[in-house]
Amino acid sequence: MTIISLTTDFGLADGYVGIMKGVILGLAPDVHLVDLSHDIAPQNVRQAALLLSRACPYFPAGAVHLAVVDPGVGGARLPLVVTTERATFVGPDNGLFTAALDQPGAQAWALDRPEFWLSTVSHTFHGRDIFAPVAAHLARGIAPAQMGQALADPVRLSARLPQKERNGRLLGSVIHVDRFGNLMTDIPAAWVTEKHWACCIASQRIEGLRESYAAVARGELLMLISSDGTVEISVREGSAAERLGLGVGTPIELQPM
Amino acid sequence: MTIISLTTDFGLADGYVGIMKGVILGLAPDVHLVDLSHDIAPQNVRQAALLLSRACPYFPAGAVHLAVVDPGVGGARLPLVVTTERATFVGPDNGLFTAALDQPGAQAWALDRPEFWLSTVSHTFHGRDIFAPVAAHLARGIAPAQMGQALADPVRLSARLPQKERNGRLLGSVIHVDRFGNLMTDIPAAWVTEKHWACCIASQRIEGLRESYAAVARGELLMLISSDGTVEISVREGSAAERLGLGVGTPIELQPM
Amino acid sequence: MTIISLTTDFGLADGYVGIMKGVILGLAPDVHLVDLSHDIAPQNVRQAALLLSRACPYFPAGAVHLAVVDPGVGGARLPLVVTTERATFVGPDNGLFTAALDQPGAQAWALDRPEFWLSTVSHTFHGRDIFAPVAAHLARGIAPAQMGQALADPVRLSARLPQKERNGRLLGSVIHVDRFGNLMTDIPAAWVTEKHWACCIASQRIEGLRESYAAVARGELLMLISSDGTVEISVREGSAAERLGLGVGTPIELQPM
Repeated sequence: MTIISLTTDFGLADGYVGIMKGVILGLAPDVHLVDLSHDIAPQNVRQAALLLSRACPYFPAGAVHLAVVDPGVGGARLPLVVTTERATFVGPDNGLFTAALDQPGAQAWALDRPEFWLSTVSHTFHGRDIFAPVAAHLARGIAPAQMGQALADPVRLSARLPQKERNGRLLGSVIHVDRFGNLMTDIPAAWVTEKHWACCIASQRIEGLRESYAAVARGELLMLISSDGTVEISVREGSAAERLGLGVGTPIELQPM
Repeated sequence: MTIISLTTDFGLADGYVGIMKGVILGLAPDVHLVDLSHDIAPQNVRQAALLLSRACPYFPAGAVHLAVVDPGVGGARLPLVVTTERATFVGPDNGLFTAALDQPGAQAWALDRPEFWLSTVSHTFHGRDIFAPVAAHLARGIAPAQMGQALADPVRLSARLPQKERNGRLLGSVIHVDRFGNLMTDIPAAWVTEKHWACCIASQRIEGLRESYAAVARGELLMLISSDGTVEISVREGSAAERLGLGVGTPIELQPM
Repeated sequence: MTIISLTTDFGLADGYVGIMKGVILGLAPDVHLVDLSHDIAPQNVRQAALLLSRACPYFPAGAVHLAVVDPGVGGARLPLVVTTERATFVGPDNGLFTAALDQPGAQAWALDRPEFWLSTVSHTFHGRDIFAPVAAHLARGIAPAQMGQALADPVRLSARLPQKERNGRLLGSVIHVDRFGNLMTDIPAAWVTEKHWACCIASQRIEGLRESYAAVARGELLMLISSDGTVEISVREGSAAERLGLGVGTPIELQPM
């Protein structure tokens, strides 16, 4: 059974996700449907793109990743398929698949063959009318080239990349806050392996990189390596986001000690 | 694999939905379970009925739709199965399946054969004890007539229908507010195709029917046709419900321009 | 298809649950994944343990129950498998599986064979790196004894048990509040079958045990037997938790009338 993962900003209350699943199962009855998240903030393409880049590597090869965060629905933005050596992605061409496009061998197609869509296409719900049926056809083995045209310049999100300064300081930012209030940054673990570091964030100073939450007392701030392999700021059994009053975009600075 | 969709007001925190799925899979291991919504407001039969009427047409023929919003559980209300040419519905007889009952060839049965239920039936959780096992048996091909008696007069919800006035005005109301704050009305697209219209809602006037959200600037109010084929009031990349301070039940009036 | 149920405090927004499912399906493509709850309060092991004890009996024999509420991740706590005659449990050794350990024939293993885990194990996300792959291997029929060592003294949660006093009074407490605001207590139905009872909770007195919500008027407080077979305090079509201002831990006293 081919896996189709689903990522949207639709929430789970209104039935939009269930409708897309109904459409998919009507065309490809034997797929395995897996929800990645439907609680992406409305229209937050960047948040969904980050989630896809973190989650998709943990899926087996051959998975189809359907993502619909689509502020431009009904306008000029193209419907897109991206293939890499490991996976296939389908959704609007608005940067959602920036990480996939950077994979070796990535190719992009603009979908333009309505015979692979629902017979009526609305102007507001392409997740149901275009992307769900195309995901189902991809899972059944229809090649993207049958459903669209090669696209040379799909949309990519610009990335504010973390920086190493000459004086040894590392400058990055908070790119995600999870349910626990952990602050995930964009500073890679590989940058912090050889020295001792202190972190400055929101006029707090945290010294030393810990191995795990369990290395400090309950309620204490700490810096450690996240499960994504980046620097993370946390409070053991508490919320660093709440404690520090911070969110996505906050700059973080690491200094060698 | 037969599809069983699930719609409840149970939420996802308490495990009630997972318990129903455990019961179903014990009786019918090869079904495909699809959540429609479990965030129906507690006891809001009308909201669930609307969701079912919008979502079920997108499922393949042969699906079983299990719905449990059940303020009368343990009382005199009957347990119900409804069949149409395309689908089967199971849940309490309280109006949830009003739209299905209006389909051609619809038939209703009152369930009265406890051998198809769990051996112990509580007074508070028929979703687990009656409806989940019956849904599983339906998916396995047991006919409703084996599990109950034909029912002549199942409960239907009364509908406040939208109206066309002699002077050309259209009167309807908001019947759903989705996660994005879009206001879905009950005025069908077919009523607004031939003229230009202005909409009056909460002392705001919106002129013209747009093709898509992308037709206006960010943050602007617009009127367009929803993915359900009805008139919708939206704010591009914003919430019309919040902007206008409105919810379900608000009257809307359309005037030819 | 073997069933794997999932219970965590991860929420559904961050993609952690989807990542675990991707890992599982890469190793065991033919399992049936069922979410029990991902809205356990962060680090609330007791809440998750109660949910598992209530829900797992409704799953068919042979199911694997994966639970990750793991305040001690990365520290000294062991990774655990528990088997009973009916089911298998996998997660951290912190009391999550207390009810399973009390089942006849229960056995526990501490996992210590990294060849059954992901090749890189983080210090913060054992759900992905250890428990998901082990759940997949269990579903494929690998015996726990191949993946770990027998463990004599797994962690158990202490239970405050309800009490029968000599004067006939029953003393218990609220152990769960569900989405509807129903207060589930730990007083078993078997204790209240033979007499008439009045309940004292938060200086309110409720007389008589009702059969169902439908036995009282809308908005009225009542005492009845919950779907778990324990005494429950409810408001018909309302929230007892809100009405009484109560939550988990509140003492309840029943007196014969």
